[in-house]
Amino acid sequence: MNRFELRIRYADVDPMGWVYYAHYLRFFEIGRAEMLRALGRSYAQVETEDGILLPVLEARARYLQGARYDDLITIETGVLDTARASVRFGYRLVGPSGAELALGFTEHCYLTREGRPVRPSAALRALLDQAPGVDAVLGERMRRGS
Amino acid sequence: MNRFELRIRYADVDPMGWVYYAHYLRFFEIGRAEMLRALGRSYAQVETEDGILLPVLEARARYLQGARYDDLITIETGVLDTARASVRFGYRLVGPSGAELALGFTEHCYLTREGRPVRPSAALRALLDQAPGVDAVLGERMRRGS
Amino acid sequence: MNRFELRIRYADVDPMGWVYYAHYLRFFEIGRAEMLRALGRSYAQVETEDGILLPVLEARARYLQGARYDDLITIETGVLDTARASVRFGYRLVGPSGAELALGFTEHCYLTREGRPVRPSAALRALLDQAPGVDAVLGERMRRGS
Amino acid sequence: MNRFELRIRYADVDPMGWVYYAHYLRFFEIGRAEMLRALGRSYAQVETEDGILLPVLEARARYLQGARYDDLITIETGVLDTARASVRFGYRLVGPSGAELALGFTEHCYLTREGRPVRPSAALRALLDQAPGVDAVLGERMRRGS
Repeated sequence: MNRFELRIRYADVDPMGWVYYAHYLRFFEIGRAEMLRALGRSYAQVETEDGILLPVLEARARYLQGARYDDLITIETGVLDTARASVRFGYRLVGPSGAELALGFTEHCYLTREGRPVRPSAALRALLDQAPGVDAVLGERMRRGS
Repeated sequence: MNRFELRIRYADVDPMGWVYYAHYLRFFEIGRAEMLRALGRSYAQVETEDGILLPVLEARARYLQGARYDDLITIETGVLDTARASVRFGYRLVGPSGAELALGFTEHCYLTREGRPVRPSAALRALLDQAPGVDAVLGERMRRGS
Repeated sequence: MNRFELRIRYADVDPMGWVYYAHYLRFFEIGRAEMLRALGRSYAQVETEDGILLPVLEARARYLQGARYDDLITIETGVLDTARASVRFGYRLVGPSGAELALGFTEHCYLTREGRPVRPSAALRALLDQAPGVDAVLGERMRRGS
Repeated sequence: MNRFELRIRYADVDPMGWVYYAHYLRFFEIGRAEMLRALGRSYAQVETEDGILLPVLEARARYLQGARYDDLITIETGVLDTARASVRFGYRLVGPSGAELALGFTEHCYLTREGRPVRPSAALRALLDQAPGVDAVLGERMRRGS
């Protein structure tokens, strides 16, 4: 899976002292953007060059251990599975000590700027085909939804 | 289900012109906080008077139709189910025209301020017992995870 | 000045237990949007009907006392002053006990969707002309920048 | 001044296609945190080891040119000036092409965890004394408040 490091900021942490749960979905966005960039083509290019948007159909996060202010965490991202009209990315957030902080996935469809469903461009399809898959452990846990 | 109206703000909307997907989890927080308040006891009181926190174990959102800037949406919230050591709240976001925007749930456990698992106080248990359930349609869709 | 009530949410509060400082600028946005709505024409209408955007040229906030989770605060908003090509709104956030939490202003110019400077439409000019001014105390404190 | 690179994310950008104005204050937080870290002592250490918090008394931002999605911007941070009981940090955000995006400052006081004013510890004072100042151009523009 693609790995990207992220620093937890003051703005991310709630009064309990842990990262506020909605921010993990922001971190998932960062993970998939950086995975695509590492493959050689950014999500920004997909939007501007191919005219294809990947809005989120579904998002799921399991919270195992809270991240704290100033932690340097790692976002692991891979493709969970692809269908004709959608793709699912899987994520694992890992803390400084190596502990799993959170797991999750997002499911996306393909739309034109005008909001019409569209097939992924050849370039986008090729990009997703070369993307790393999620590891077996994460894949299994995400698929059985447990 | 409890109903609470919310105005979409500029800060909530992404460059696609739709509410950014992570913000729906903030809206879920608002929904459950206002449901408890409507029952006569705020989440703030649960934290300060009972010393019990309800961190999120899992969150899930299905995105059906995007909300737009300045939309006045309705957050419907109810209890999806309760277990001995956890509770799940279900949510439906409804747009100005009555269209379903998103569905989701959050699962919470009970912790002391020190982070130790704890049974819900009698007052909290009573509060959750009087809470409205999710309607049958939402409950069915959330339980079968589809 | 226009008054609008806002509930502080978990997502707004930082690990110090006070509202994170950047969120006050979101609250200023809410204040000016609700002031315009109360005058009978929303900022959304200004964008869609007049095709005029009001991007922020400058923002300033003074933090007097922190707001806390679940506080119901009041956002007071008025016009600080207008120039040919810009307008400044002034803000005061007031806590549940009536204490001043923060003061600030934002300065805006007028742009077309394409980003070209434009004169405000007659309708927008009329809207701003009827807007309440800031009270003398706030105006004085903002103008002398102290 | 200390320089730190930051990638603009989808969550940061508003429907105008530019970074939402409040987020610049988050970027200022990142700038000062990374400046302190580069000096060898993190803000997290100041809080936990010295027991001193630096809440914001005032924040100001001038917006010169909007940042866009996926831009890699540079946050330049330095000490604008220090007083007995407060410190001001100055910031310049620079876009990919080298254009100035925004300028600003934040003023901070020193508090104990209990919220009592306190003198900065010797270690914190030493840290701020070694910090880079803002460059002359930024200093001049911030001081004359223009």
